[in-house]
Amino acid sequence: MTAQDTVTAAMLAIGDELLSGRTRDKNIGHAAHMLTLSGIDLKEVRIVPDEEAEIAAAVNALRSRYTYVLTSGGIGPTHDDITADAVSAAFGLPCIHDAKALELLAAMYERRGMEFTETRKRMARMPQGAEHIPNPVSTAPGFRIGNVYVMAGVPQVFEAMLDHVLPTLAHGRKMLSVAVTSPYGEGEIGLRLAAIQKAHPETSIGSYPRFGGNGVFTTELIVRARDETALEAAAADVRAMIEAIRQEKEASPA
Amino acid sequence: MTAQDTVTAAMLAIGDELLSGRTRDKNIGHAAHMLTLSGIDLKEVRIVPDEEAEIAAAVNALRSRYTYVLTSGGIGPTHDDITADAVSAAFGLPCIHDAKALELLAAMYERRGMEFTETRKRMARMPQGAEHIPNPVSTAPGFRIGNVYVMAGVPQVFEAMLDHVLPTLAHGRKMLSVAVTSPYGEGEIGLRLAAIQKAHPETSIGSYPRFGGNGVFTTELIVRARDETALEAAAADVRAMIEAIRQEKEASPA
Repeated sequence: MTAQDTVTAAMLAIGDELLSGRTRDKNIGHAAHMLTLSGIDLKEVRIVPDEEAEIAAAVNALRSRYTYVLTSGGIGPTHDDITADAVSAAFGLPCIHDAKALELLAAMYERRGMEFTETRKRMARMPQGAEHIPNPVSTAPGFRIGNVYVMAGVPQVFEAMLDHVLPTLAHGRKMLSVAVTSPYGEGEIGLRLAAIQKAHPETSIGSYPRFGGNGVFTTELIVRARDETALEAAAADVRAMIEAIRQEKEASPA
Repeated sequence: MTAQDTVTAAMLAIGDELLSGRTRDKNIGHAAHMLTLSGIDLKEVRIVPDEEAEIAAAVNALRSRYTYVLTSGGIGPTHDDITADAVSAAFGLPCIHDAKALELLAAMYERRGMEFTETRKRMARMPQGAEHIPNPVSTAPGFRIGNVYVMAGVPQVFEAMLDHVLPTLAHGRKMLSVAVTSPYGEGEIGLRLAAIQKAHPETSIGSYPRFGGNGVFTTELIVRARDETALEAAAADVRAMIEAIRQEKEASPA
């Protein structure tokens, strides 16, 4: 939990249903928002199918590049839930029935008067040596191994697990941002905006066109910086640019 | 447009705003749905930031593995719109102002009585030799180079471009699917479902837990196959499994 300048993360969403279009992913957008709030830069997202080799290859590609990797999906009890196997394979560790997870699950099914079937026991599987990520919603834990955090795909459970994980992560210096709405399209502001970006290299200025439907584009400009003075200086230049364009248009209407 | 058994695709969504959580992506889910309808298997999705090296590396990783690569985002006129540069770099081609695109854009701005600025001319940039993807919404074209289809990030424009592209792609034999809702959670059906999957290797049975909020999970089961007879046989077994569980529960209530 030191405040380094940059802490990075990648997210890996796992599941055929996301790739077939049956399910629209909700976890990526949520994680992106929460990581940004935490001062962690989400640098890459991948969605892969329920195939062990694909999941393991993505885990290995991402864990070597980024401070943290968050995964969602594939930790339920059925035959297509193979994330525990794939992550174990990626780390070269045996995938075992974790004793503490078996206990938690056994107690929960006991309380509910339900049989603790072989299928349900699959939810206790994780790489040997993994640490639990608690699941306050439905008991079956996620797990952490190395810098990889394996969480559920059901959004209520994913969000609860992420809430638990975030305070345990190192966080970077928080990225600050200011939004400025330009009534002018990107084509009218682009050159001047590029000059402003060049003059403020310690900021990152994003430009996002919005199509109004009446044939007119407006632009949402987002200035980002970790330093507040740098942020305000760049934002002031952006506002001045918009005011200058307004005055020019008044002086010589199209 | 031959009907091969399997045609694959990957999608690459480009943009800092997707990774910061400011914008929730709408194009991935739409593309997944439309590709599935077209009999094309979406096998992988990546989201990368507005960084040329990252975009180029992802384009190269994906175009060598899949039949098609669709990209969204980063083809507007501003300094952070660098998809044309990155895709050109990936193919080792010069990024040029395409003559036909310049003509289209010049005519559009002429009609609208607007100046065709240097900034706006950036929207005509693409790798030398690329083919246009028409943009009926706001003129600035996307482009195809090799098996990579570069489209806009604004959803209305992305969708219009994709509508144009899809009929030009080879399509696989369409994947058929049947949905069966199980009132029982994955823990109760998992073992039997795994046996059904094993007995029907030419199908793919997905199992998706839904959390009802009252502490009860139900399960959405999706049986998929390219062959209708195989599909129906597996789906019949799934329905019989649910009926068998129901009868067992009636016989010995918990």
